[in-house]
Amino acid sequence: MQTVSENKCFGGVQGVYTHASTACSCDMTFGLFLPPQAADGPVPVLWYLSGLTCTHENAMTKAGAQGWAAEAGIALVFPDTSPRGDDVADDEAYDLGKGAGFYVNATEAPWAPHFNMWDYVADDLPAVLAANFPLDMSRQAITGHSMGGHGALTLAMGLPGRFRSVSAFAPIANPTGSDWGRVQLAAYIGDDERTWGAHDASKLMAQHGFDGPVLVDQGTDDQFLNLLRPETLSQAMAAKRQDGTFRMQKGYDHSYYFVSTFMPDHIAFHAEALFA
Amino acid sequence: MQTVSENKCFGGVQGVYTHASTACSCDMTFGLFLPPQAADGPVPVLWYLSGLTCTHENAMTKAGAQGWAAEAGIALVFPDTSPRGDDVADDEAYDLGKGAGFYVNATEAPWAPHFNMWDYVADDLPAVLAANFPLDMSRQAITGHSMGGHGALTLAMGLPGRFRSVSAFAPIANPTGSDWGRVQLAAYIGDDERTWGAHDASKLMAQHGFDGPVLVDQGTDDQFLNLLRPETLSQAMAAKRQDGTFRMQKGYDHSYYFVSTFMPDHIAFHAEALFA
Repeated sequence: MQTVSENKCFGGVQGVYTHASTACSCDMTFGLFLPPQAADGPVPVLWYLSGLTCTHENAMTKAGAQGWAAEAGIALVFPDTSPRGDDVADDEAYDLGKGAGFYVNATEAPWAPHFNMWDYVADDLPAVLAANFPLDMSRQAITGHSMGGHGALTLAMGLPGRFRSVSAFAPIANPTGSDWGRVQLAAYIGDDERTWGAHDASKLMAQHGFDGPVLVDQGTDDQFLNLLRPETLSQAMAAKRQDGTFRMQKGYDHSYYFVSTFMPDHIAFHAEALFA
Repeated sequence: MQTVSENKCFGGVQGVYTHASTACSCDMTFGLFLPPQAADGPVPVLWYLSGLTCTHENAMTKAGAQGWAAEAGIALVFPDTSPRGDDVADDEAYDLGKGAGFYVNATEAPWAPHFNMWDYVADDLPAVLAANFPLDMSRQAITGHSMGGHGALTLAMGLPGRFRSVSAFAPIANPTGSDWGRVQLAAYIGDDERTWGAHDASKLMAQHGFDGPVLVDQGTDDQFLNLLRPETLSQAMAAKRQDGTFRMQKGYDHSYYFVSTFMPDHIAFHAEALFA
């Protein structure tokens, strides 16, 4: 692991690091915010998964999360959204290939050699974090925006016991019913739709639910509502009697102005679960 | 004036607008955050002037100011840092020409036709703001970062009675003694150093001071300390018996991680003056 940069921020350190990823077979870059409390011992971890076209950097610079995490004493992890490098397959579309890993393990050509973002977030990066930083990996939570909200919800429900709480900002909530999902799931994991359910938050919610609290925020003026399909997830949460809150936020769109507005609530929500 | 974008943010609106600038003889873009309180009547205004290479956008997306401004009920104005457009003179250096207006009115070729950022911030943009938004222009304050901190301090001291309070993050504090200043002042307003003092915060502080409270934050690990020369300003503030606070912040650098960390303090500082 190599240090790219470290900047003091709200009494802690916002770092950027690279490492050779086993899961993705390439070098990967991630951001990690360590709050001031990490100087005294291991702190809990909140994962933030980003959306289409993003890197590790977007939320680090625009989500305004560090101040609240410093107050709560929680570390923030900002992974990249896909494998990177010249020998990694790509597509001209902004929503397939680089910047659009969709948090799945690809089985299809040309994606399979590198596009294993599920394993990267589930196993590969956690091992790097545990080995190098004062983090309490027994206390983890996860959130994300858009495609990252999809990743947060599917990883949380797909890895029971791993995360104490899950939240999402405008998640891709029902990718098996959306062009933000059907195209990519077919490309990455193949045409057999029976395999897609493990990567659909609404289906996972209907089937398994989540063993902990759930918080979802969605703007009513989001320009991508037809692709996100929030109503399928809110229906599934209520039908499953899931411990959770689904908020439609009047007038907000899909931008980081929306994310930063509700970030304080999400950090407080996860802090309650992480320090329970 | 034309609207480029408006995003709901912390209950208010983060807008971006363009207008034909008289001072700069070109179209100019600015950001304006209106807090939720603006729906009920005019709100006070805090100007944020940005640094070298920045546009109106940097602080809007990275400084994390809107949440605190929404809580306080203060509007935020984010001007650009120079004139723009194909017919505007430029230089290969990052610290001269576009993105580096230094908040002066240029008298020298090739800069004089467009580089009038002093008049732009002092007269031109205020008129646009007053005509188009619910702002109480009798209650203004000003802050900025690096070159923008220089602009905030020099405009506040150069326009007595205009601003109720002034603050700065890592300002270029003594440009007449620095390569961040001597080069640009010579280029923009000519070789006669006697004219430079009106654009040097330390000299203005020593001579006039500011009729209101001053707050300056400076990181001890700033990579540009030799160019910023904070010690000249801190000396001048103490010697002038200026109502003010100068803080050296241990371990912080020149980045927006530093700015965002102390933004809550600066907004609270200005709110106290604006609502006194």
